[in-house]
Amino acid sequence: MSDSEFDLIQDFFAGLDQGTSVRLGIGDDAAALALPDGHLLHVSTDTTVEGVHFLATLSPTDVAYRSVMAAVSDLAAMGASPEALLLSLTLPEGDRVWLEGFSRGLADACSVIRAPLVGGDTTRGPLSLTVTVLGSTPADSYLTRSGARPGDRLCVSGTLGDAAAGLAVISGRLAVDVSAAEFLTTRYTKPSLRLALGETLRGCATACIDISDGLLADASHVATASDVGLEIDSALLPLSEAMRSSVDPDQSLDWALAGGDDYELLFTLPRNIPLPDGCTEMGRVVAGSGISCDRTPERIGYDHFRR
Amino acid sequence: MSDSEFDLIQDFFAGLDQGTSVRLGIGDDAAALALPDGHLLHVSTDTTVEGVHFLATLSPTDVAYRSVMAAVSDLAAMGASPEALLLSLTLPEGDRVWLEGFSRGLADACSVIRAPLVGGDTTRGPLSLTVTVLGSTPADSYLTRSGARPGDRLCVSGTLGDAAAGLAVISGRLAVDVSAAEFLTTRYTKPSLRLALGETLRGCATACIDISDGLLADASHVATASDVGLEIDSALLPLSEAMRSSVDPDQSLDWALAGGDDYELLFTLPRNIPLPDGCTEMGRVVAGSGISCDRTPERIGYDHFRR
Repeated sequence: MSDSEFDLIQDFFAGLDQGTSVRLGIGDDAAALALPDGHLLHVSTDTTVEGVHFLATLSPTDVAYRSVMAAVSDLAAMGASPEALLLSLTLPEGDRVWLEGFSRGLADACSVIRAPLVGGDTTRGPLSLTVTVLGSTPADSYLTRSGARPGDRLCVSGTLGDAAAGLAVISGRLAVDVSAAEFLTTRYTKPSLRLALGETLRGCATACIDISDGLLADASHVATASDVGLEIDSALLPLSEAMRSSVDPDQSLDWALAGGDDYELLFTLPRNIPLPDGCTEMGRVVAGSGISCDRTPERIGYDHFRR
Repeated sequence: MSDSEFDLIQDFFAGLDQGTSVRLGIGDDAAALALPDGHLLHVSTDTTVEGVHFLATLSPTDVAYRSVMAAVSDLAAMGASPEALLLSLTLPEGDRVWLEGFSRGLADACSVIRAPLVGGDTTRGPLSLTVTVLGSTPADSYLTRSGARPGDRLCVSGTLGDAAAGLAVISGRLAVDVSAAEFLTTRYTKPSLRLALGETLRGCATACIDISDGLLADASHVATASDVGLEIDSALLPLSEAMRSSVDPDQSLDWALAGGDDYELLFTLPRNIPLPDGCTEMGRVVAGSGISCDRTPERIGYDHFRR
């Protein structure tokens, strides 16, 4: 291995730091950004570890793309617009072939979210990535988990459970036809990006969260933060055509309720607000606490420190 | 292990997110911050990995404190004031005793830098930390690596090489008397914080960088970014009393030139600007490129991907 850390950054990441808000990009001690006056800064960080959050067989392009989308999904849940991201990459060795694939995924992701990569760190160690995302909203207009009120509708974007089914296909635990396999695995490797929906919901949804750990697990965060109960009708859960045609109905519902990695938005909407296109009403906010659902899947969500 | 990720965050990190700029702290999808209008945001991220950046024997309190200070040092080098930080912690298991020590170091660090911890992530995996720091400066007043001009003085804060000597003491490679051992190891575990100096240098230093990888290595970044040469007089390097009294002079100079982890500021200053207190002039900026020094240490700096 002859590449220095400095060379790696120059070769693979330096070109992605262009943007109108960037005053100083990669290559100094910190990046400098000019954010719009009168706006709030929203910031979140997410770590993904090989063998924990993704399989060792996942391509480096997909590793990069998924990690960025997972992190940016937190901005979507706030109704925020991406301003910039930072990537800290820990990898066992400076493998240029791996890094070329990785940097392609990273460039794709930056292009899709229309935000520059303004900084990061590369270190040697077991493969993991930490993506920090910065976004902005007008000062008094952003979404939280805590505003759901009894009587609101409980809604979700897209379809649920596809990423869990896709991971099962990739892992050889689920056999489906070629087109369903392609759809489901792509839902895992290239998760939805709901930034436009988040911006639409700003000022009309009462609460919002992105579904990363599974519908039931993430819904419970909204219930706790809002001090309300949430009722979910499993019959109303949105399932994709690929899921309905290829997967046993019980398994489909379990994945829709408890599968992670969908990165759809779960939100609560007052009755007088029209449901946005591509979204489904599948429950309601009630006085009380916790989640009630007519179905209990075998495994609820994913928690790194419970087993 | 019975703690969930959510419990760990609540128990150990949730109290540190208070600050005048914080609109929304830990517990939602992202934190929300109101930064001063007309200011630039400065952002940097640093990962430290057990066994690479710190010894497995380092106490959890020191692991936390050092990691935050190392990251905040990048803000000092920009002349920026800390606004907030985020911590992503990957650890093999949810060991509450370890986490209690860790959270003490983290709380100490937040108190010293006077900035809240507004977000983070906890995941399971080999022990590592990624600290992301956010700071601000007035829009057109910040330090970079790229403004050094021939004729400027080359200066440094504090004393050099102490952290490398302290690490040698901790590792059993250097035997010194008790008071020198305490001073040197503390320089390693509790590095200098030069935020006030960075703010003082804003608008008068022509270039600045923090010394994390060793004086020669970091000076070379300034030379490259500024397109100048830097001359260093090894006889002028500032050495601590503990270093001078306890360590062989050749070894002292090698550590001062090539030892990492000092987190002092290296900066270039026009001749008409007075040298700030606690700083030393130890060289000059010249036309040309690269670093020239009357002494070549055996090992220059630290690079994760060169060996």
